Formats: sequence, structure tokens, C-alpha cells
Amino acid sequence: MMADKLARRIIAVASGKGGVGKSTVSANLAVALARQGRKVGLVDADIYGPSQARLLGAEGMKPKARDSKLEPVATAWGVPVLSMGQLSDPGQSIAWRGPMAAGALTQMLEGHWDDCDVLVVDLPPGTGDIQLTMLQKFKPAGAVIVSTPQDLALIDATRAMELFDKTKVPVIGVVENMAGYACPHCGEVSDPFGSGGAEAVARQRDVPFLGRIPLEMAIRLESDAGTPPAAGDAPQGQAFRALAQRVGEWLDRGTAA
Amino acid sequence: MMADKLARRIIAVASGKGGVGKSTVSANLAVALARQGRKVGLVDADIYGPSQARLLGAEGMKPKARDSKLEPVATAWGVPVLSMGQLSDPGQSIAWRGPMAAGALTQMLEGHWDDCDVLVVDLPPGTGDIQLTMLQKFKPAGAVIVSTPQDLALIDATRAMELFDKTKVPVIGVVENMAGYACPHCGEVSDPFGSGGAEAVARQRDVPFLGRIPLEMAIRLESDAGTPPAAGDAPQGQAFRALAQRVGEWLDRGTAA
Repeated sequence: MMADKLARRIIAVASGKGGVGKSTVSANLAVALARQGRKVGLVDADIYGPSQARLLGAEGMKPKARDSKLEPVATAWGVPVLSMGQLSDPGQSIAWRGPMAAGALTQMLEGHWDDCDVLVVDLPPGTGDIQLTMLQKFKPAGAVIVSTPQDLALIDATRAMELFDKTKVPVIGVVENMAGYACPHCGEVSDPFGSGGAEAVARQRDVPFLGRIPLEMAIRLESDAGTPPAAGDAPQGQAFRALAQRVGEWLDRGTAA
Repeated sequence: MMADKLARRIIAVASGKGGVGKSTVSANLAVALARQGRKVGLVDADIYGPSQARLLGAEGMKPKARDSKLEPVATAWGVPVLSMGQLSDPGQSIAWRGPMAAGALTQMLEGHWDDCDVLVVDLPPGTGDIQLTMLQKFKPAGAVIVSTPQDLALIDATRAMELFDKTKVPVIGVVENMAGYACPHCGEVSDPFGSGGAEAVARQRDVPFLGRIPLEMAIRLESDAGTPPAAGDAPQGQAFRALAQRVGEWLDRGTAA
């Protein structure tokens, strides 16, 4: 039981700034890791803007409690999930101060995850109560940092990395999201948010660059519809599968070490 | 002195989700309101991801204290600003729990704003400590809600509006950001984040729709460079000037009523 608990590893998916696609990366990373045959669970710790119930098509499915612990909700993609989105009514604001938010995080992380070897945790943006509680009580095995190529997002990504460094959580690497948009009319790729910035920051901080995810309408449409691109074999899932490959290798090295 | 304080009105710029351009909207709204001849100040309450020092080209300018109150930093655009970005070192994480974050907000809002009639407050995403402290201690005259047209962002925008409704803060209206991208090669406009969603939500909740801001490279480049588009007369500032027009009319109606 203890060994089981120790063997379960938490991958924190973090960003400094919101809206960089952290939740989309978390959902698709979890689904792609599960397709590698791993036992993966997902915790949506973005208390004030939970997206995972929508992204995984699990809206309206309420988790039950067993022995006063939450039972993760099964999804069609083999990844059980716990999300604030399942615990609150849609359209209702979650007006909680830090201690309550940290309490909700604790409840979700202490749920019945016995069947999972890997727990992907979608963190809220920033470096506040949720991040601090997580680092103090449920130390992640590693962190994946998501950023767009825009200067403003990179400044905040650096702040987030700094917190993981300070608390000795290894940064698995940096993912650049929204990194090139192919015009649906002429097919030419341009960069509304710039390009290459995340790779430069990764190099500068000497952490691996985990790849680019394009700004693609197919990704947004499938995400809004609750069918994660990584679950299928279409091209829009490719960047996520490649990311999961890198993270999977990191996990295997960790186990072997 | 008391009348002066009462006459100063706070406009909260809020979103449920991060990364929807709330900070860019706040900066340009403040600059455009100042160009109408109003006395406008800006508070960057996005504690964990402060962007205003960068957006207004005021990086590295530290506010001084006078009579144990912070002195807002003057900018080239006639809008004095206080931002967490000026109080912390770049690249350092701001690992604060809620009460400390709320304390920083209080310090900024209680700064020397005597010369300002309008205070634009750039709120962090969500409905947590900062929002609750603000609503309890510094009640805004009204709130501008920023969203992208994407479903996921709209769900969170609705949550934010709900909190303002609950606390009887009038929602001035909803702005749709990143609402159409003109391909730099062929010029055709497409919608990487969808289109029209924010307007539909505004209609549904019976609040004004304040207009669309396109996803434009010129806006990102000028924002990253610290020269707000609303300060110039180029086309990329037009959407912000139109927004400020609507908000200015709202402010004038409020005064007259």
C-alpha cells in the first residue's frame, strides 16, 4: 500500500500566465500517456477556471465519495478525472479564499487514485495557494511548463520555473503552445503570438525543450467538444503524442534511476 | 478630501480565464480614457503575473513611498501605474498565499491616487482572494469583462459575471478579444478562437456588448514593446478607442445620474 503510494508519481503541468493552453496540454498529455499503456489519472487543480470536465467530455458527471474520499470519474479516454468543474454548478462563481481552494486541492489529490501510476495535475496559473500547498503536501516528481511564444507569457513562465527550482522539483521541460497558425484560406503559416521564444527560454535555463503545438482550429474545436485530439490518430493529435513520448521517456528514466 | 475620494471611481477589468488579453485591454482602455481628457490611473492587481510595467514601458521603475503610501509611477502615456511587477524582481516567483496577495492589493489601491478620477484595475483571472478583497474593501463602480470567443473562456467569463452580480457591481459590458485574425500573406480573416461567442453571452445575460478586438500582430508587437496601441492613431488602436468611448459614456451617465 505504501509502496503503491510511493510509486505513484505526480506530473504538474504549470504556466505562469493563464490562457496559454495548459489545460489542453494536460488533458492531451494524460490521454496520450494512457495510450502508451500507462495508468494515468488527471486532477484539475485550476480551481477558479476548471476546464477538464469539458475537455474530456465528462461534464455533469459528479464524483461520489467512498470512505470519505472522492472517487475519480471515469472518462471515455481511459483517464479518470477529478475536477472542480464537477463539484460546482456551471455558471456559478467559485468565490473561495486560499485556504478553501487549498482544501479542495487536497481532497482531489487524496481521492481514490490507487489504480493510477501517474497523476497529471493541471495547475492554475501563477504561484499562489494551490501551488504552495501542492509543493508542500504532494511533491510532484516533475513539472511540465507551458508557454506561448509571447514575451509577456515567457516572463511569467520563468517565474513559475523559478518556484519549481526553489523547491527542488525537476522541470521536465518547456512546451511552446500556439506556435504557428496555418491560414485556412491560403495555407501559409504565420505566428500571431511570435515564435521560438519558449525554446530560447528553455535553452537559457538549461531545461529540455519539449516541442511546439500549433495554434490549430481542429484542436480548439475538438477541445470544446470534449474529444481530446490525442485520443485519435488525426494530425492535430501528433504534437501531443510527441510530447507524451518525451514525458514517457522521462518517467521511465526516473523509474530506472 | 472625502468628496475627492468618493468621486474617484474604480473600473475593474476582469475575466474568468487568464490569457484572454485582460491586461492589454486594461492598459489600452486606461490610455484611451486619458486621451479623452480624463484623469486615469492604473492598478495591476494581477499579483502572480503582472504585465502592466511591460505593457506601459515602465519596467524597472520602482514606486517610492510617501507618508507610508505608495506613489504611483508616471508613464509616457499620462497614466500613472502601480504594479506588482514594479515591486518584485523580474524572473522571481511571487510565492504568496492569499492574505499577502490581498495585502499587496490594498497597498496599491491605497496609494496616492489623489489626482485620478478613474482607476482602472487589472484583476487576475478567477474569483479568489484578490477579487474578494477588492469587492469587500474597494467596491468598483463597474466591471468590464474580457473574453475570447472560445467556449472554455466563455464558461469562465460567466462565472466572473456571476460574482459581480452577486455583489451588486454593475457589469459595464463584455469585450470580445482575439476575435478574427487577418492572414499576413493573403489578408483573409479567419477565427482561430471562434467568433461571436462573447456577444452571445452578453445578450444572454442582458449586458451590453462592448465590441471586438482583433487578434493582430501589431497589437502584440506594440504591447511587448511597451507602446500601447491606444496611444497612437494607427488602425490597431481603433478597437480600444471605440471601447473607451463606450466606457466613457457609461462613466458620464453615472456622473449625471
